[in-house]
Amino acid sequence: MPEMSVGGETVVMKFGGTSVASPDDLKRAAARIVDARERGKQVVAVLSARGKTTDDLVAAAYEISPRPLAREMDMLLSTGERISCALCAMAIHDMGHSAISLTGSQAGIVTDSSHTKARILDVRADRIRGALTEDRIVLVAGFQGVSGDSKDVTTLGRGGSDTTAVALAAALTAEVCEIYTDVAGVFSADPRIVPGARKLNQLSFDEMLEMSSSGAGVLQLRAVEYARNHGVRIHCRSSFEDGPGTLVLGEDETMEQPMVTAVTHAYEARVTLTGLRDEPGVAGRVFGALADANVNVDMIIQNEPISDDQKADLSFTVAREDLEAATDVLGPVEAGDGIETDAEVGKVSIVGAGMRSHPGVAAKVFGTLGEHGINIEMISTSPIKISCVIAGSQVPDAVTAIHEAFGLGADAVREEDPSGEHRPRVAP
Amino acid sequence: MPEMSVGGETVVMKFGGTSVASPDDLKRAAARIVDARERGKQVVAVLSARGKTTDDLVAAAYEISPRPLAREMDMLLSTGERISCALCAMAIHDMGHSAISLTGSQAGIVTDSSHTKARILDVRADRIRGALTEDRIVLVAGFQGVSGDSKDVTTLGRGGSDTTAVALAAALTAEVCEIYTDVAGVFSADPRIVPGARKLNQLSFDEMLEMSSSGAGVLQLRAVEYARNHGVRIHCRSSFEDGPGTLVLGEDETMEQPMVTAVTHAYEARVTLTGLRDEPGVAGRVFGALADANVNVDMIIQNEPISDDQKADLSFTVAREDLEAATDVLGPVEAGDGIETDAEVGKVSIVGAGMRSHPGVAAKVFGTLGEHGINIEMISTSPIKISCVIAGSQVPDAVTAIHEAFGLGADAVREEDPSGEHRPRVAP
Repeated sequence: MPEMSVGGETVVMKFGGTSVASPDDLKRAAARIVDARERGKQVVAVLSARGKTTDDLVAAAYEISPRPLAREMDMLLSTGERISCALCAMAIHDMGHSAISLTGSQAGIVTDSSHTKARILDVRADRIRGALTEDRIVLVAGFQGVSGDSKDVTTLGRGGSDTTAVALAAALTAEVCEIYTDVAGVFSADPRIVPGARKLNQLSFDEMLEMSSSGAGVLQLRAVEYARNHGVRIHCRSSFEDGPGTLVLGEDETMEQPMVTAVTHAYEARVTLTGLRDEPGVAGRVFGALADANVNVDMIIQNEPISDDQKADLSFTVAREDLEAATDVLGPVEAGDGIETDAEVGKVSIVGAGMRSHPGVAAKVFGTLGEHGINIEMISTSPIKISCVIAGSQVPDAVTAIHEAFGLGADAVREEDPSGEHRPRVAP
Repeated sequence: MPEMSVGGETVVMKFGGTSVASPDDLKRAAARIVDARERGKQVVAVLSARGKTTDDLVAAAYEISPRPLAREMDMLLSTGERISCALCAMAIHDMGHSAISLTGSQAGIVTDSSHTKARILDVRADRIRGALTEDRIVLVAGFQGVSGDSKDVTTLGRGGSDTTAVALAAALTAEVCEIYTDVAGVFSADPRIVPGARKLNQLSFDEMLEMSSSGAGVLQLRAVEYARNHGVRIHCRSSFEDGPGTLVLGEDETMEQPMVTAVTHAYEARVTLTGLRDEPGVAGRVFGALADANVNVDMIIQNEPISDDQKADLSFTVAREDLEAATDVLGPVEAGDGIETDAEVGKVSIVGAGMRSHPGVAAKVFGTLGEHGINIEMISTSPIKISCVIAGSQVPDAVTAIHEAFGLGADAVREEDPSGEHRPRVAP
């Protein structure tokens, strides 16, 4: 047994909240973990809080306080993942294997002190390595760490368990980081909007980054960034069925790119500062204040002033739950005519690494939206992505129309899979 | 403000699960804490898990595993108190005071590694002292610590939050350790059985020890032991009303003792090993095995063998939930004719420091039970206590009869309170 544990390659397996929600779900996750161990792997599993646990804890906080303290929110919310890990260790023990649960702090996840949105500064995985050497399965509470200076419990923000998993995979030089959720992989569009969306067999870090940042909920943006920076292969899989899932790899490992890979969408809020003086430092003050308030800004658009009075309009989008905080902090700093907000906008994006070598994608996107009577409020592009802000109510129509226009559906033939071996599989 | 925080005396306030159950309860506890702070005290509050949280977590564990791992039980159960503390810190913040929640580990509660029943080895309260110096209220998650060797989360057993509070009061040389529950103090008998039971204004550590060990649920035995050994004054109070409560003090501080102070009771299970060989080492093996299985044994009775075959009977009582574990471990070690068990026994005890100087108490107890047709199965005595094991179904009758026979009721006049100033108050 010791030689197996020393010789086996390490895998990190991350299970989301729906994958550990009920006792049966949790035992199913435990069985997957044990199965990997019995195939000779050294297994580190990262678990999220069960089902609606985090939502319930957040609700409990708001029952007590209209603006819960961030430090105490972290103390509160970090309990959910610990519960999952303790229970899973019990289940694994009953399956005849040795397991140990660790808090983020015990697992060596050292973060900064930015409560509720902490960033990982270091992974000191000595205790994990020690447990693996003792032939134990290690269960790590996701989403949390400990601040390096104050030794307080911190959390990494919603979806932070993905980041925990990738960071551990990097620190342990794991062969793969498997992310188990309730969907079969990454799709060409949200199957709830486009029933004919196709599961992708693989895509590049850059594509996944653009998708995560533009609304694809399957992987957290920071986790993908971390994976790209550390070369961690991610394998998105369903914990409820044994499909091939979706691999997220370096571009050098992926085969020739299709022009367009997927359509994503997100519901956001827009803020427009009107009549700003066009002088140096204005934008810095605006976005500095937002950063201080921990508001993540997504798209930013500023036009050069065209009128004589040298005033400019500045628009940006934020998560809807951050809108109030954004307008609160901008009151004192903005130096223009006023603030306009729209809490009901949406964003539709088209992503594909092949876009770089295929001009005309933007024109086709704008044309498609126009044909369907959808007005574009803001546009933002990257080499492999085009995003359009539109009315939130028109998002489903826009996603469907673009998915159709680029032929991304389940009946499409992918260049890299001529054998048809990996038949597209759509989540139920 | 700094001089207030440096100069103020320290109080430790402990709130039980019912005192923090609902949002209103939790805010009421927060208001009591803030009130003490505003009276110039330095406040360390120890909180239990809310309402039925611990029961729910235990149930979740048994949904997963028939015999949950002790280490993982501790990881699981320790979350409940952290939730209480985080929420209470939020509530205190909204009342305009600074508060910080600490886990048992962060609070410096260092224990042995006996999971689910750990003992406190050391209290390293530097972080608490630092926070008090910064003029903060400190909230400590009760019932838990960290093992000194393995750095694992440990718990102190049911009711362990009392011990946490007393240990912190000792380490901080607090003027008093206030224990807030849903009852008005310590009573002369359980008011649910004896409606006319009287609230005691004060009693000695020794009396409280005997009462806690014989069924009075208001304070955990280990907490009282710890308080006696470190001279920590305990003040039992209701969190729902402003009564005078009950003080637990050193005997040198209490006034003249009444002969009998209270009647307590407990429901237990009895184990009898029959036909044991009367040779050295038998009892050691029996109770060694029980200790290894973490079964706490209460009363032990062994009679000298009177027959010619030199065989003895050995009886003892355990908590009902430990009966199965007790019989499991005794199968291999007992060396006699067999094991008999009774899962339905009860124990009635009469406690009073004045008993030492008043002979005849035992005779009166036995006579009273006999008059009421109650058979005594086992008897055990200490200088200030007499305990009788009887049928569990007869416990209410026995408590009522003894309480009446010794005149312990609310209409009794206490020697030490001739003024009647502290009129007895009975919990609703």
